[in-house]
Amino acid sequence: MSEDYRPMWTDLGLNLEAHDALLGVLGPLYEQTFLSQQNRPDGMQYFDFVMSEVHGLRIKELMDAKAEGRKVIGAFCTFVPEELVLAVDGICAGLCAGAEWAPEEAEKLLPRNTCALIKGAFGFAATGVCPYLAASDVVVGENTCDGKKKAWEIFKDLDGVNDFYAIDIPQTKSPEGIALLRAEFERFKTKLEEISEKTIDADNLKKGIATVNAKRAAMHRLARLRAASPAPISGLDALLANQVFFYDDPKRFTDSVNKICDELKQRVKGGLGVADRDAPRILISGCPMAVPNWKLPTIIETSGAVIVGEESCVGERGTQNLTASTGDTVDDLMDAIVDRYSKIDCAIFTPNPSRLEHVKTMAREYNADGVVHYGLQFCAPYQIEAGPVEKALEADGIPTLRIDTDYSPEDVEQIRTRVEAFIERIRG
Amino acid sequence: MSEDYRPMWTDLGLNLEAHDALLGVLGPLYEQTFLSQQNRPDGMQYFDFVMSEVHGLRIKELMDAKAEGRKVIGAFCTFVPEELVLAVDGICAGLCAGAEWAPEEAEKLLPRNTCALIKGAFGFAATGVCPYLAASDVVVGENTCDGKKKAWEIFKDLDGVNDFYAIDIPQTKSPEGIALLRAEFERFKTKLEEISEKTIDADNLKKGIATVNAKRAAMHRLARLRAASPAPISGLDALLANQVFFYDDPKRFTDSVNKICDELKQRVKGGLGVADRDAPRILISGCPMAVPNWKLPTIIETSGAVIVGEESCVGERGTQNLTASTGDTVDDLMDAIVDRYSKIDCAIFTPNPSRLEHVKTMAREYNADGVVHYGLQFCAPYQIEAGPVEKALEADGIPTLRIDTDYSPEDVEQIRTRVEAFIERIRG
Repeated sequence: MSEDYRPMWTDLGLNLEAHDALLGVLGPLYEQTFLSQQNRPDGMQYFDFVMSEVHGLRIKELMDAKAEGRKVIGAFCTFVPEELVLAVDGICAGLCAGAEWAPEEAEKLLPRNTCALIKGAFGFAATGVCPYLAASDVVVGENTCDGKKKAWEIFKDLDGVNDFYAIDIPQTKSPEGIALLRAEFERFKTKLEEISEKTIDADNLKKGIATVNAKRAAMHRLARLRAASPAPISGLDALLANQVFFYDDPKRFTDSVNKICDELKQRVKGGLGVADRDAPRILISGCPMAVPNWKLPTIIETSGAVIVGEESCVGERGTQNLTASTGDTVDDLMDAIVDRYSKIDCAIFTPNPSRLEHVKTMAREYNADGVVHYGLQFCAPYQIEAGPVEKALEADGIPTLRIDTDYSPEDVEQIRTRVEAFIERIRG
Repeated sequence: MSEDYRPMWTDLGLNLEAHDALLGVLGPLYEQTFLSQQNRPDGMQYFDFVMSEVHGLRIKELMDAKAEGRKVIGAFCTFVPEELVLAVDGICAGLCAGAEWAPEEAEKLLPRNTCALIKGAFGFAATGVCPYLAASDVVVGENTCDGKKKAWEIFKDLDGVNDFYAIDIPQTKSPEGIALLRAEFERFKTKLEEISEKTIDADNLKKGIATVNAKRAAMHRLARLRAASPAPISGLDALLANQVFFYDDPKRFTDSVNKICDELKQRVKGGLGVADRDAPRILISGCPMAVPNWKLPTIIETSGAVIVGEESCVGERGTQNLTASTGDTVDDLMDAIVDRYSKIDCAIFTPNPSRLEHVKTMAREYNADGVVHYGLQFCAPYQIEAGPVEKALEADGIPTLRIDTDYSPEDVEQIRTRVEAFIERIRG
């Protein structure tokens, strides 16, 4: 990244010294993780560029957009309806939460037994190194898990958090739960209209829906191409696309993913892949992996297996459903949006049977040989749901490995040993 | 307890060997904890008797009631509206969850980092030693925290859990959140009517409300008497009353508490107490302590301090509000019940400002010198809220000590050291 961004980072109030230290870690980590891979699709060069400029050019774009009066909405979760943000010509930006960063700062504010994602968000915020947070006009949290909903009460008052806004999420999909979500999305719509001084109408909302749907449809296309053997793209690269989904300009992102899909289509035709045809094919299921959380996929794919799908909010759980845009009124479209988001089968819901069905469907459609369930330590919803999911998958003849971990590198070799044993079991 | 209950326990399907082992631990623990105290009110003899028969006579009463067609509703939480249970002539019974019991069984089903209360419930259930669970016609769980709501999905299928029923609880007190609670209480009312084959009408519901209110009012009376110096009753004995609140026949319980209050009134007049007049007065605030979780109060009260209040669901958070019975229709009364329960300031709600206000009020009214915040390890709602609560109390000049622990005796001496240092700080 060019030094030219330093004045911008200063304007944003970042702590330049700490931010330099962060970039000094992230750059080499990215190179080591991604650029060392063999047979990458040429189209991944775009994502390499995006990542090299993730705190530079993309932030400059956000600042330019803000100068034109557009609003930046920072978010941590796939429950934030991007359709509404786009309808007021706003920009959604994923906020930094994917690395262990200044845990000692996070632990001044949170219990030690808080999940790594929440601690990461606090560490980045408390040390002033997340330009997306600094650029956000509104920072949106959601009452999904206990950890997040209670942590927001503290997070909202941190320096550098501009205008914190919480969206409440129900715990069940009862009629009253859906009504609650509907009311919350209406309230968020009003908030967006107020800060943007724009009105959401059927026209701009339909456009917003179309833009997000196109992004999701491109990811569906990418997902289906991974069903081929040999896998035409690595799990790491596909995860990266799922991660950039939350950062990049949506239309440019969609075009870039479709371009990669065109290339992968040719690869599949030609029988070209990134791994041996007999490499065990793994489906990952569980907690979301935010940038730069590449720990478990790296272990899996450097142990001789290839990842063919992510049942995750940064993955197919987050992208699987499109929003219907058949209505002609804002009210109809809001119904469609609520309907779409209420189908997300996050483990925060009880019961949550469709997630298990989705894991099974993904395993079948992408020809997975086994499932690795990824639980973030202290994430009660996914860690508890992991038990029944593993049991049901094994009963269905799908080998399953449960890995509970955090962002620390300390247990990498221990996990590698378990993953290798799992791969051996699959190779059987 | 008499051997006469063994046939009853066998009929209930208890594991007699494991149950004997449990009683072999509980009896001595009770004696050591309670009977060793000095200057106990005579009225506590009733509770000593109740506890000595907690798996005996009280279970026999439940079985006799069941034989008459009455229904037993087992519950884990103060969110279960006893008013409705009483309206159909049912009996509410707190379920076993207050001790570390067969953690290896619980950990077959749950992640290790699950709170001790949930693990306890699983350990008791999985080994067949909770007669209240066995006697329950319906076992009610509630979607309060992530741990419970997800654990119920597994708990409901355990052997010995007869008819599991989950009540959904909102995460905020928004109009939609209250509407959700209202719908859930209506659904629970219907469930109770179905299993009891009785109809809830304004008359029986008013009677139910009056019975529960009387029980709460007696606890208010007890609470106020503890404001005196020296404290007329120990925190352990008062906690025991709060615990038995969930087990005993409500009218007998109310009478017994009022009888103790009459005695305490005389003590206060005579300047009699259980501790020195200069003993530091501690308010406990935080997670509920179910029978036989007496660990932290024992440490505090054997370190020279006296506990003068419990801001807890097994304590004043659970009992503080009465249900209005001014309405004349079932609908009005249901509104009043929802209104009353929605005021519970459990840390599962976000935000939850009234809890902090309540802690401050209690500290002032009961002349507390300091607050010990009790967090169950892995209970994210209370552990996260502990930070802001501590900060606000200290800012108000109220010394505060945060203790995060589980049911294990391993850290008792470590906690004692911290409690002693805290008492020294108060003594200044």
